[in-house]
Amino acid sequence: MVGWVVVNQPIRVTVWGENFHETSERDRDAMAKRYPDGMHGAIAAGLEKELGDAVEVRTATRDQPEHGLTDEVLNTTDVLTWWGHARHDEIDDAIVDKVHQRVLGGMGILILHSAHFSKIFKKLMGTSCSLSWRSDDDAELVWTVSPDHPIAEGVPSPIVIDQQEMYGEYFDIPQPDELIFISSFSGGEVFRSGCTWKRGKGKVFYFSPGDQDFPVYHHPDIQRVLANGVRWAAPVQSSSLAAPAVRNMVARQFTGAKINPEADKSGEV
Amino acid sequence: MVGWVVVNQPIRVTVWGENFHETSERDRDAMAKRYPDGMHGAIAAGLEKELGDAVEVRTATRDQPEHGLTDEVLNTTDVLTWWGHARHDEIDDAIVDKVHQRVLGGMGILILHSAHFSKIFKKLMGTSCSLSWRSDDDAELVWTVSPDHPIAEGVPSPIVIDQQEMYGEYFDIPQPDELIFISSFSGGEVFRSGCTWKRGKGKVFYFSPGDQDFPVYHHPDIQRVLANGVRWAAPVQSSSLAAPAVRNMVARQFTGAKINPEADKSGEV
Amino acid sequence: MVGWVVVNQPIRVTVWGENFHETSERDRDAMAKRYPDGMHGAIAAGLEKELGDAVEVRTATRDQPEHGLTDEVLNTTDVLTWWGHARHDEIDDAIVDKVHQRVLGGMGILILHSAHFSKIFKKLMGTSCSLSWRSDDDAELVWTVSPDHPIAEGVPSPIVIDQQEMYGEYFDIPQPDELIFISSFSGGEVFRSGCTWKRGKGKVFYFSPGDQDFPVYHHPDIQRVLANGVRWAAPVQSSSLAAPAVRNMVARQFTGAKINPEADKSGEV
Amino acid sequence: MVGWVVVNQPIRVTVWGENFHETSERDRDAMAKRYPDGMHGAIAAGLEKELGDAVEVRTATRDQPEHGLTDEVLNTTDVLTWWGHARHDEIDDAIVDKVHQRVLGGMGILILHSAHFSKIFKKLMGTSCSLSWRSDDDAELVWTVSPDHPIAEGVPSPIVIDQQEMYGEYFDIPQPDELIFISSFSGGEVFRSGCTWKRGKGKVFYFSPGDQDFPVYHHPDIQRVLANGVRWAAPVQSSSLAAPAVRNMVARQFTGAKINPEADKSGEV
Repeated sequence: MVGWVVVNQPIRVTVWGENFHETSERDRDAMAKRYPDGMHGAIAAGLEKELGDAVEVRTATRDQPEHGLTDEVLNTTDVLTWWGHARHDEIDDAIVDKVHQRVLGGMGILILHSAHFSKIFKKLMGTSCSLSWRSDDDAELVWTVSPDHPIAEGVPSPIVIDQQEMYGEYFDIPQPDELIFISSFSGGEVFRSGCTWKRGKGKVFYFSPGDQDFPVYHHPDIQRVLANGVRWAAPVQSSSLAAPAVRNMVARQFTGAKINPEADKSGEV
Repeated sequence: MVGWVVVNQPIRVTVWGENFHETSERDRDAMAKRYPDGMHGAIAAGLEKELGDAVEVRTATRDQPEHGLTDEVLNTTDVLTWWGHARHDEIDDAIVDKVHQRVLGGMGILILHSAHFSKIFKKLMGTSCSLSWRSDDDAELVWTVSPDHPIAEGVPSPIVIDQQEMYGEYFDIPQPDELIFISSFSGGEVFRSGCTWKRGKGKVFYFSPGDQDFPVYHHPDIQRVLANGVRWAAPVQSSSLAAPAVRNMVARQFTGAKINPEADKSGEV
Repeated sequence: MVGWVVVNQPIRVTVWGENFHETSERDRDAMAKRYPDGMHGAIAAGLEKELGDAVEVRTATRDQPEHGLTDEVLNTTDVLTWWGHARHDEIDDAIVDKVHQRVLGGMGILILHSAHFSKIFKKLMGTSCSLSWRSDDDAELVWTVSPDHPIAEGVPSPIVIDQQEMYGEYFDIPQPDELIFISSFSGGEVFRSGCTWKRGKGKVFYFSPGDQDFPVYHHPDIQRVLANGVRWAAPVQSSSLAAPAVRNMVARQFTGAKINPEADKSGEV
Repeated sequence: MVGWVVVNQPIRVTVWGENFHETSERDRDAMAKRYPDGMHGAIAAGLEKELGDAVEVRTATRDQPEHGLTDEVLNTTDVLTWWGHARHDEIDDAIVDKVHQRVLGGMGILILHSAHFSKIFKKLMGTSCSLSWRSDDDAELVWTVSPDHPIAEGVPSPIVIDQQEMYGEYFDIPQPDELIFISSFSGGEVFRSGCTWKRGKGKVFYFSPGDQDFPVYHHPDIQRVLANGVRWAAPVQSSSLAAPAVRNMVARQFTGAKINPEADKSGEV
């Protein structure tokens, strides 16, 4: 309905995947059927399907050198998506620090499902990020509580997910800047399943639907939400993508200012 | 566990009730069994039971002169609770304006259940306050999403309400300053059932559980939440309880200040 | 730096002006020099200069039939900007109600300077919207506190306004969803000069710099902020632009759900 | 004006001080005149003066074993205040982790002035916490933007501080849950000088006025704000003071729930 700036460059997206279940002896056969290109592959394919030329998508995984997140990759990433579950502790702190700096500088980040316990999410939130859970073949309904938010555009309320792990409250996160989705589960639980925060100049979107045991990342509505999230999290065009830093301001904006002892003291409400 | 100021004066609470279902030909027999002292009577009794000497509780109803909210009553009310449903439109705008001014001045207000459509709530929120509903004997679970908030103190998560009208999203309210409770219903719906906002100097708490067709206001956990809400919404001790007003500040806090053309222009992040 | 959707239709903007100072005997000569096309004309020209083909801008004023805001105009407006000062009370309540409904439905609105006391802003906020002021030729500095927010894109921090009316705290507004700018004045006062809220599906941006007695709307940085604000406030492409309404949901999303008396009560944090 | 719960136990406060300037060769003589009992001593004395029997105050410093924050001390602390400046990096990460856990569990924390760069604050915020500064004998005005907030009770707006280090925007913090104070400086800068957040079950209050080079902690209004902050940050009476933890909820709250394929899909706004 409304206009927007036309730009030539696509959003550069890096889809990061833990790539553990895909390769572990226990899970790899089931994963090969459910996610033949890995979960990161399915997420990347969904973004490309939804966003087309508006994005350039690549993947990176834990088992690559520097977890696939070299300086060259990070410095050319506008939005990073992060899925992890069973190997959070293996992620190198130095890489986490680089991702953190890049987010503060303006790179968007999507934190997906079990990545609530990733080092980068806990570092960005400052809380335990703990929650309640049950893997018991629940159904999940994802209700929009911020209609016409760009992240919720084009999906029904509720999104119906027939089979999904239950994630329930209390979810130990800072109060979201924006609460977009609340889920209910067939067991009666609720969860703040779509939340945004700003950290420094960067935008953070947590979205819980998605699990290694269920084919959630093939669900068209979930793919749409992830695509919306990538667009929403992209930095503004003019961003320097440099993290805020301390600054010694020597010059004063005003000169000659002195406290006026006669000044109005009645200012209290 | 921790100390607080000891004060001598109780919180002065006025429990306002629409008193329509209690008196209408259709509902009065059922209401006389469910709420023999009216819903306002049940709410007032719950507050007295929970808070004892810390409150002075009186009731006021729509069918009294000035809806029971004379200047004398409002000027001696620290916290007002408001339940209405079928006769919102009959409330005199001049009384609504007085309540509004008193809230901006610091009086706390609890908006209960179907009072989401009351004139005072819509005036405080600036939105339609519309929602989804179904009166179909659902069960409701009230989950705490802000643990250790004073309003949630002493109640289980979830509070279990066996029978209750369903209220569902989208609930058209401004983003709450604090989201305390989220409810799920046996039909699968979710609702932001406990929300707070500040308006001027006053505190607003919306709490949805409670309906004329179900005995929810006798539920001990619900009574506890309402009592907690009253304590939370009470004005600070030193409050003037005067609404903010425009003010012409003639004197300047600084004198002699001039723009310094040499001032640091590098202030952008 | 990053891509976005290319759309063909421009944002349809209506710039509303009170057009009182421009026409009053007292002010019209000075205004003719300062704002030869009226303040609304200057604001409209700034938007066209900054946004070009991305917008279609028209103006509407108080002295036109229906204040220039006929159904036909409102129904084809994506973003409305509102400047008023001395004749707030003359605005027809029925028109204010229509604007309010349109905002809840998704139309963006920019509230400018002394329009803090307009009927539409007070209706959207639910507070007195009072503030402190002094018309004494202060300098104003507008500091960005949300870097890389699209509304702050491309302007220095601080924006320096050599001459401006002082607006100071306490500004009686609900806590903003986002605080973008804080101003200081040469008298030492501070003001939350750029604030956003969502109401229903619509976005609200209040921006205080701009006054009939000073040529602030010719200031390039101020023009840029207004243009940014229009882009930010535009509805999402798929918006129905219909206000949220109450809905009776007869069908349940889940069937057969019953309270489980054995459910885990240890869920409390 | 209003009542509150009478409790017998005082709030147990630990005032933590870096105790570096007080002991360094360069600063100790000046500090001995300005803060003969150390800054921590001055802060503790202010709390005792303002709160009397409602608190039990002790101090702890960096140069003590475990920085004075043994398990026994932390486990009996309801509210911790933290001042540091020049030796942030020397604080043991294991101690920081314990403080962090205790905050998530419900202990209140006041972060003072240059402690914006402390490990604990950065860990709680998830941002760089960088800011602009100038040590040039500015005057600071501290304006209340949340009147009747308990932290602002009993202080004028503005609080006038004749001499103070300038702290200016951009201050890289997550959007505060509540913004209580905004400061201006005689140089024209602004700063969000009083901010609150909740992290887990604990409350965080950042307050910037206070510096080793100026006698700000002897200022009666500043002492009052700190005392108000301690009272505000105290945990609720029934708090377990245990940090939120992950929980496997085996039992379901509802049984028998199935997706209803006929459910109302018209629920979207």
